[in-house]
Amino acid sequence: MRSFGCVLPFAYRNDRMMEGETDFIQMMRALAHHPAARGLSDDAAVLEIGTETLILTHDMMVEGVHYLPDQDMADVAWKLVACNASDLAAKGARPVGALVGAMLGSGNEAFALGLGQALNHFGLPLLGGDTVSGGPPRSFGLTAIGRATHIPVPSRSGAKPGDQIFVTGPLGAAMMGFEALRDGTGADSTAYRRPQARLAEGQALAPFVSAMMDISDGLLLDGWRMAKASDVSLAIDSAAVPIAAPEERRWDALRWGDDYELLFTLPPETEPPVPAARIGTVEPAGFASLFVDGEPVTNSEGLGYQH
Amino acid sequence: MRSFGCVLPFAYRNDRMMEGETDFIQMMRALAHHPAARGLSDDAAVLEIGTETLILTHDMMVEGVHYLPDQDMADVAWKLVACNASDLAAKGARPVGALVGAMLGSGNEAFALGLGQALNHFGLPLLGGDTVSGGPPRSFGLTAIGRATHIPVPSRSGAKPGDQIFVTGPLGAAMMGFEALRDGTGADSTAYRRPQARLAEGQALAPFVSAMMDISDGLLLDGWRMAKASDVSLAIDSAAVPIAAPEERRWDALRWGDDYELLFTLPPETEPPVPAARIGTVEPAGFASLFVDGEPVTNSEGLGYQH
Repeated sequence: MRSFGCVLPFAYRNDRMMEGETDFIQMMRALAHHPAARGLSDDAAVLEIGTETLILTHDMMVEGVHYLPDQDMADVAWKLVACNASDLAAKGARPVGALVGAMLGSGNEAFALGLGQALNHFGLPLLGGDTVSGGPPRSFGLTAIGRATHIPVPSRSGAKPGDQIFVTGPLGAAMMGFEALRDGTGADSTAYRRPQARLAEGQALAPFVSAMMDISDGLLLDGWRMAKASDVSLAIDSAAVPIAAPEERRWDALRWGDDYELLFTLPPETEPPVPAARIGTVEPAGFASLFVDGEPVTNSEGLGYQH
Repeated sequence: MRSFGCVLPFAYRNDRMMEGETDFIQMMRALAHHPAARGLSDDAAVLEIGTETLILTHDMMVEGVHYLPDQDMADVAWKLVACNASDLAAKGARPVGALVGAMLGSGNEAFALGLGQALNHFGLPLLGGDTVSGGPPRSFGLTAIGRATHIPVPSRSGAKPGDQIFVTGPLGAAMMGFEALRDGTGADSTAYRRPQARLAEGQALAPFVSAMMDISDGLLLDGWRMAKASDVSLAIDSAAVPIAAPEERRWDALRWGDDYELLFTLPPETEPPVPAARIGTVEPAGFASLFVDGEPVTNSEGLGYQH
């Protein structure tokens, strides 16, 4: 997920900002004068401390907003960990640990079970946290801490004209999983319920990339953000994007979030050190931040999980 | 506040555990195998990373549980920062920064204002975080990061028989402030609305104390916890405890939380390096963890903010 953004799951997809969110984020930016905050416009904070560089990220999930009230709490816990782990992946960080804030309620045991599975899976030992009463809606927060494996730590803002654009894997799997779950088709919903985070890939890529971020809100919207942050245009070839959905759903897959693949750029002649699909080229900043199949996208309306 | 505890404000004081909380915390403890977690039984996590030792703490506040729905959101934000800063103080840590999870709603601007004031006051630059929609009830989380100024980092568990017991300041001020606010008497409610954290005192004390913690849940309950953690008895002289309340409220002041003074123990001949009141003596573990004016307290029922 993106820090200081409103990440809405597709079930509640909404192309408008939450009321007052822009103002609030502006106020937060004014408080984030420390360089580690990266102006609150990156996936995570990058904090130099002694000879170490730490990566810090915090995401919240709210019942009825980020998950369905009847969802398995083990899956909710898994996703809470995964979306934070994905932020670490985008920075090429090695996981160190996590603090969890949990609001108690039904399914506590399932939540703890899923949390344990995910923390173990992503290599994030539980370091501390807080339990509270309250809700509905219940809410949960997780702070993940990682160590940078490469300096400088990748950012969204380093893409240069001429760079190649890549994704680490197919998009749309979470969308198909969500729909299977919603419609009770019995098809596999694992990709939606138990997303992965590209931690190994992020670490392998960190020394080579000019820019990197995770795709939490959809390729087009996140690509648009990378273009804005880097002051370039991204020209994406939609047909080159690997998708895990029927061909007629290609455009939906490009807009859907929750897949947590990495989007990254490499200098012209550099080969990616991990399996990845080349999906386009970085161009000089033009009148649009994003071009898809040559067509300009001049604003971010309708591109994905908007905020 | 205490990690993985349920800190209830006095308005909602409740001597029972939340349903399922013990089980949940047990499950969390099973996940907290990393030594930095200190078994989830200290004020904060203590994480060695490279040559640094970091202190990490996360607390949540929930509308209607930790604050009144009509409370000034600037005060809510202040307290969210203060209770985490107090956890850093208990470890003798120097503040490094904070990540904030905020649920948007009415009073966003006041929240941002109070947050900025508190972060600035406690020296915790904003490093990152997340904004979400949802509620009521709204909830907020804050992760504070600090650097240890002394190794070993103080814990709750080091009190030794013969040690002297101290508090850094008077108790009951938050209680009086809360009642002034609740009853609209016009008396000063600052101590309840804008608590301090004893950061300077914690750093000065860290090299000398045998045990230290902040008093978030009341002197008696927190003293009982220190005794349990240290496997000793604490013998407290109630008349020696400085209070910021009328004399007839002395016992209430000893049970009330939210003052965030430091409770610490020193070896017999050591003088505290900061102003502090000696309130008792550590004794060998006896049939009770706590003795007040010679009377044993054999369980923690009714001692303070229970959980």
